[in-house]
Amino acid sequence: MHELAGKLLDKFKKRDAVIGILGLGYVGLPLAVVFAKKNVRVIGFEKSEKKASAVNDGRNYIGDIVPDELTAVVKNRALTATTDFSRIRECDALIICVPTPLDKFKKPDMAYIESACTDIGRYMKKGTFISLESTTYPTTTENFMRPLIERESKMKLDEDFWLCFSAERVDPGNKNYHTENTPKVVGGLGETAQTLGMAMYGIAIRTLHSVSSPRVSEMVKILENTYRLINISLVNELALLCGKMDINIWEVIDAAKTKPYGFQAFYPGPGIGGHCIPLDPFYLEHIAKNYNFDLTMIHTAGLVNNVMPHRMAVKISFALNRHKKPLNGSKILFLGAAYKPDIDDERESPALMVIDEVAKKLADISYYDPFIAEVTTEHGRNYKSIPALTKEALADADCVVITTNHSVFDPDFIVEHAQLIVDLRNAITKPSPKVFKL
Amino acid sequence: MHELAGKLLDKFKKRDAVIGILGLGYVGLPLAVVFAKKNVRVIGFEKSEKKASAVNDGRNYIGDIVPDELTAVVKNRALTATTDFSRIRECDALIICVPTPLDKFKKPDMAYIESACTDIGRYMKKGTFISLESTTYPTTTENFMRPLIERESKMKLDEDFWLCFSAERVDPGNKNYHTENTPKVVGGLGETAQTLGMAMYGIAIRTLHSVSSPRVSEMVKILENTYRLINISLVNELALLCGKMDINIWEVIDAAKTKPYGFQAFYPGPGIGGHCIPLDPFYLEHIAKNYNFDLTMIHTAGLVNNVMPHRMAVKISFALNRHKKPLNGSKILFLGAAYKPDIDDERESPALMVIDEVAKKLADISYYDPFIAEVTTEHGRNYKSIPALTKEALADADCVVITTNHSVFDPDFIVEHAQLIVDLRNAITKPSPKVFKL
Repeated sequence: MHELAGKLLDKFKKRDAVIGILGLGYVGLPLAVVFAKKNVRVIGFEKSEKKASAVNDGRNYIGDIVPDELTAVVKNRALTATTDFSRIRECDALIICVPTPLDKFKKPDMAYIESACTDIGRYMKKGTFISLESTTYPTTTENFMRPLIERESKMKLDEDFWLCFSAERVDPGNKNYHTENTPKVVGGLGETAQTLGMAMYGIAIRTLHSVSSPRVSEMVKILENTYRLINISLVNELALLCGKMDINIWEVIDAAKTKPYGFQAFYPGPGIGGHCIPLDPFYLEHIAKNYNFDLTMIHTAGLVNNVMPHRMAVKISFALNRHKKPLNGSKILFLGAAYKPDIDDERESPALMVIDEVAKKLADISYYDPFIAEVTTEHGRNYKSIPALTKEALADADCVVITTNHSVFDPDFIVEHAQLIVDLRNAITKPSPKVFKL
Repeated sequence: MHELAGKLLDKFKKRDAVIGILGLGYVGLPLAVVFAKKNVRVIGFEKSEKKASAVNDGRNYIGDIVPDELTAVVKNRALTATTDFSRIRECDALIICVPTPLDKFKKPDMAYIESACTDIGRYMKKGTFISLESTTYPTTTENFMRPLIERESKMKLDEDFWLCFSAERVDPGNKNYHTENTPKVVGGLGETAQTLGMAMYGIAIRTLHSVSSPRVSEMVKILENTYRLINISLVNELALLCGKMDINIWEVIDAAKTKPYGFQAFYPGPGIGGHCIPLDPFYLEHIAKNYNFDLTMIHTAGLVNNVMPHRMAVKISFALNRHKKPLNGSKILFLGAAYKPDIDDERESPALMVIDEVAKKLADISYYDPFIAEVTTEHGRNYKSIPALTKEALADADCVVITTNHSVFDPDFIVEHAQLIVDLRNAITKPSPKVFKL
């Protein structure tokens, strides 16, 4: 093993390495806390002054973090945050936890990874280990990161620095699995990188799974989320057919779940939300074009999901039609803006897409979400949550649409006071003539 | 409850009902044995003289049955088989376990269900309970069976007979789950039918799950198998892309499996086989057309799988190409004709479809399967298995193609003696320059 790599491995083993984490969002901050809890010094790099200050003040802003744990590691100075990326030079290892969005044309937007790699290339010292956690298309580590860092740093892979890919597997709101106890897949670029990656993550993560290359590791993450996309798309399509056939799709799914092997339940909804499932498969579509390969399953799943918000608007319109009302001018109250229950995150939320569709038809929109005070839709519409879900608010709406099944929503209370309900989440299980299901 | 229904319910509770099972195949015969083991009298109706005689002689022909159990229930006269369908009049309950194939144009072939219902209508006595287990499109029980039986019998549903749908969930070769301990979904047409269905199946099956209608029950089975079709299609498509990207898809799947939630592993292969997965989703496509509904996910999955045998032939051709050989005249030895490992069933097996594709290009075909002595392909080609997998047989083939991963196949032995191997099942895990993977 190269001398610098040997020294670095030794530091990981003795836990006296300094670990830099780029991006203190829902991936980076929990990871920073886990490393810091193991008494490793962590520097969090963050472009947002506001977030960096919050961390340094011990103020938590991520739902999955135990606030006291953050306060403790900040207080004992294991974790500090900074907006000064030149402090990259203080780090022995760097972990990139930046977002990888898609642009408006569903092309991967590599700007955040590019910026992180540029900063790293500019400031890192010789003998640095770098791991990418951001979901991206296979070959990114080898063919995008490596040349970029080599160019910026004038250093050489396998002599001056080592690279690996190990995707985050954060599932916001999951009560059983968090950063520390979710197994992590590590794919180093070369044997030394693999050894270093396993040693570094071994400090913080209980179970590691080694794979032969970064591209395998990149594909693992895409497979996990593509699996979800495909299955949600299937069940959404079946839900629409079941609606026409007078079959309750939720009853079907609950019965299918009694099969003790070879089945996993997915539930329909107004579309696909969150940071991963709506995005990750399209990274693969992007790189597949390089190989003249058409991913028809992903493509079709995309088609099904693109059309869901529109279909939900049609459903709302047809529900109102029973009351001889048009969308135009009707008061529609949406319950839930978050993309899944009991979290405060509305990014890529299908609720907002349905709102946009219905607003376009000139309905009078309001929403209630106990976790999200204000939203801006993709089309730039801005709404503030009504302050409370009162009888009056329910009764006043021509139609109440349940877009997120937050557990605080009381189905009986909603059914009692609403005039008409479109339930896109099977929140209401008792039969009622007021309720239209997805 | 209707008087006749009440009497029938009483018979089920006292276990002195006579149960007729129509079709003694891989579904009907195990079910007959389970009922007979509970000391209920079972009459098995079978069009094939050969099968009926085998049962009456206590000779088993279904892999999942414990032969001694069959012998015991025949010996104590709990189970008898007959080709005389007029004996339907001796039965209190009838369970239909006949096949529902697709015709050449992937349209449901209802001939077997139709024939069973016609026989039932012709011979049944008043007060009979009838359950359909054959996978079929939702609404079959209500809109196909019911009018057919009423017409043939001149009897009326809910007065003279009761109907339910409860799909078989047989998974041939499954060591953990068999007829008795696999939960069963029961959907009666009306409340009385539901009560009767739960009582009858409760005699034989440990766990029952009640649903509100036959159409829900029919959809459950379709959902279960459509889920499998969609996921196998996804992974087959990803496998082809991974081949181009120098990524081992099996390594990817094994790593993805370490995710402790939200993932279920499916493995690629040369296509989809068996009695259910290649067929069931297309029943749904069929009925969906009635509702002007296009099931794009199923349609796309069908496209992916239709093309797999052709792509496998291309893979074999390109492997031979490395040895400067064409398909035309090359000796190709296929290992495994069964559609899954360690079973003796080649129906809908992708192995046979690949053989047809390669035979069309004038390759010299042979095959070895320890469980299947002779096969006829869809295109009518007939082959006999070579008697044993010898060194000489392996060495003599220009290319050995692993189409089924029977556990008796020894990968080291195959690699040692074959000239060239195309491994469509990841049977060979040690790297070797002789091996081409799917």
